Amino acid sequence: TAVINASVAGAVLEAFDRLDASSQVWGAKGGITGLLNETFIGLRQQPNGIWDGIRVAPGAALGSCRKKLTEEDVACAVALCRKHDIRYFFYVGGNDSMDTANMLSKAAQASGYEMLVAGVPKTIDNDLAETDFCPGYGSAARFYAQAMIDLGMDIRSLPTPICLMEVMGRNAGWLTAATMLARRAPDDAPHLIYVPEVRLSREKFLADVKEVYDRQGWVVIAISEGMCDEKGESLSLPTGKVAADGFGHRMVGDVAPALARLIMGELGLRARNEKPGLIARASSHHVSPVDREVAEGVGRFAAQRVFAGETDFMAAIRRESDPPFRVSYFPVPLEKVANAERLLPAEYVADGGNDIAESFREYAEPLVGGELRRYARLRW
Amino acid sequence: TAVINASVAGAVLEAFDRLDASSQVWGAKGGITGLLNETFIGLRQQPNGIWDGIRVAPGAALGSCRKKLTEEDVACAVALCRKHDIRYFFYVGGNDSMDTANMLSKAAQASGYEMLVAGVPKTIDNDLAETDFCPGYGSAARFYAQAMIDLGMDIRSLPTPICLMEVMGRNAGWLTAATMLARRAPDDAPHLIYVPEVRLSREKFLADVKEVYDRQGWVVIAISEGMCDEKGESLSLPTGKVAADGFGHRMVGDVAPALARLIMGELGLRARNEKPGLIARASSHHVSPVDREVAEGVGRFAAQRVFAGETDFMAAIRRESDPPFRVSYFPVPLEKVANAERLLPAEYVADGGNDIAESFREYAEPLVGGELRRYARLRW
Repeated sequence: TAVINASVAGAVLEAFDRLDASSQVWGAKGGITGLLNETFIGLRQQPNGIWDGIRVAPGAALGSCRKKLTEEDVACAVALCRKHDIRYFFYVGGNDSMDTANMLSKAAQASGYEMLVAGVPKTIDNDLAETDFCPGYGSAARFYAQAMIDLGMDIRSLPTPICLMEVMGRNAGWLTAATMLARRAPDDAPHLIYVPEVRLSREKFLADVKEVYDRQGWVVIAISEGMCDEKGESLSLPTGKVAADGFGHRMVGDVAPALARLIMGELGLRARNEKPGLIARASSHHVSPVDREVAEGVGRFAAQRVFAGETDFMAAIRRESDPPFRVSYFPVPLEKVANAERLLPAEYVADGGNDIAESFREYAEPLVGGELRRYARLRW
Repeated sequence: TAVINASVAGAVLEAFDRLDASSQVWGAKGGITGLLNETFIGLRQQPNGIWDGIRVAPGAALGSCRKKLTEEDVACAVALCRKHDIRYFFYVGGNDSMDTANMLSKAAQASGYEMLVAGVPKTIDNDLAETDFCPGYGSAARFYAQAMIDLGMDIRSLPTPICLMEVMGRNAGWLTAATMLARRAPDDAPHLIYVPEVRLSREKFLADVKEVYDRQGWVVIAISEGMCDEKGESLSLPTGKVAADGFGHRMVGDVAPALARLIMGELGLRARNEKPGLIARASSHHVSPVDREVAEGVGRFAAQRVFAGETDFMAAIRRESDPPFRVSYFPVPLEKVANAERLLPAEYVADGGNDIAESFREYAEPLVGGELRRYARLRW
């Protein structure tokens, strides 16, 4: 995400403060694969001032992986921690990463090796349980909401009547839902919003598009990359034989080009599709200040608790007040988040399954961190 | 584009200054279709101060069209200008729009109706003849270059080894070429750049990708939406029966998902694809200050010359010095630009046809208007 490095910086700077100077602070290159390969990066040995830059850089400065640990891997990881005298272990990530941290923590305890383990939440998908939101979400939500405003300005003036914007999110519609923040006037984009929590038949989709088109002559659609039809089959283009990552998650995406073709074929209307993809996740121009601050705060909190002797938890975020938007942090047991997935609650999906309820604005607006850029229009 | 309204504002504000207050200044809603439908927007009747907002709004504030004029349309358009006593006519756009302006200008002259006609260049494709560059290009180029930096940061840290970014541009590779500005270090993205001026066989493409992958383990590719294979067939996904716009241009795009599937199928490597599409064109966060200033300047210049009695020209841009980057404006006959298309010169394509020559930096860098955002990386 655009703010994962803020979390890493928070935890690392806290470690520099609290550990004596002779102790090493290592980063594992490529997450857990870095531990298994013993490829460590000396974080104390970095140039002065580098953390000011790392804190605001998008992407994972330590690298990442998509590795599902086998029991053998876990035993090996614990043995390597023991070998290198690793006593504190932080893992930043989403559901799968919390699963990894949980397995490592439990295995260390079972083998009698004393190592304190904390998870730090990070995912643009916003689908971790027990926390009000996940760092990374607010910034990606800001990108998509702003992109929807900008795109709406362009499509409004274009003779191409239909445009789909594909939004990241395999199972959870939090990001797709955030495009509703683009709307202020009744005819503002997006006019239809589809989240993967609702299964969508092609017939219903075409009927929705036709209804809006007949009414106002142009249709901008936000659609999750993870959309499935009523049988649970992906609506996206087939990806061929490379279909799953290390966790067995299918490769999704390109639902927008597939549905643009459906519209052109069945309704005979020109349909564009746009898919910012990882550009949405990596855009430092759209970082939410709130998101970055909380990302760093939750990393610091995890480190403070670990160095105070706590273990086996993920640092979670509680919304304390709004306005002013204020959060606090608290630990939740790793096993409570490791295999949970928090989907968009049904109350946020509007009746008909093709829009997001207005009540969602209250949840999401503070997270995108301030006013979006709105534009003047001529009066006619 | 993100700056077309700056050109409109330039011409309109000049008209307010130079015409007496009893004269009307109209916008035609939806370009030439607005004239043919007699749907005019009173520009003097807009709220005070609105131009400060319109000038920085993306999308065409007056709307746009993709209408190829028939001879009958042209005669009708001239008759309507006569009916409404339209004496000055400005048209902002690319090759097709200059063709429209040229037809209208010639028809008015032939029928003895005195109307002064000027074209104002605007296209992110940068493919108008006779002008050093086209307003709109610098801002879209800035978006793509910055997005490539951001995307590179993310992909560098990801276990997904291949990523394609699709760039707008049907026949001309100017925008795709601009992604080379993202590079500073030898392994920075993009590692391969494909422009539509070079035909690309699937075999050559796969061999290029494999070569870079074998060498460095990750590959980021910039590829034009307009890419064709060695037979001249589009490499993009088929679009079905809705295939052409009003000018007979085929609907292109979705070349990146098509080639991602080719890579997955033939090389067995996971390949993502990202396609910002119109978001690149509309993003006001990435406007190049130089681009906006010139967009307004060229609109003002067109109006100054028209109100001084000149006609039948497009306002063009000449690069006077660099650094400091300074331009001047000059008129070129509409018929010289109406049906021309300026492709990326062969000297800017690197040997092998899979990259852009370093010399292109000198042309493009001033247009994106200042430093791009670069990020810190950990040392290892």
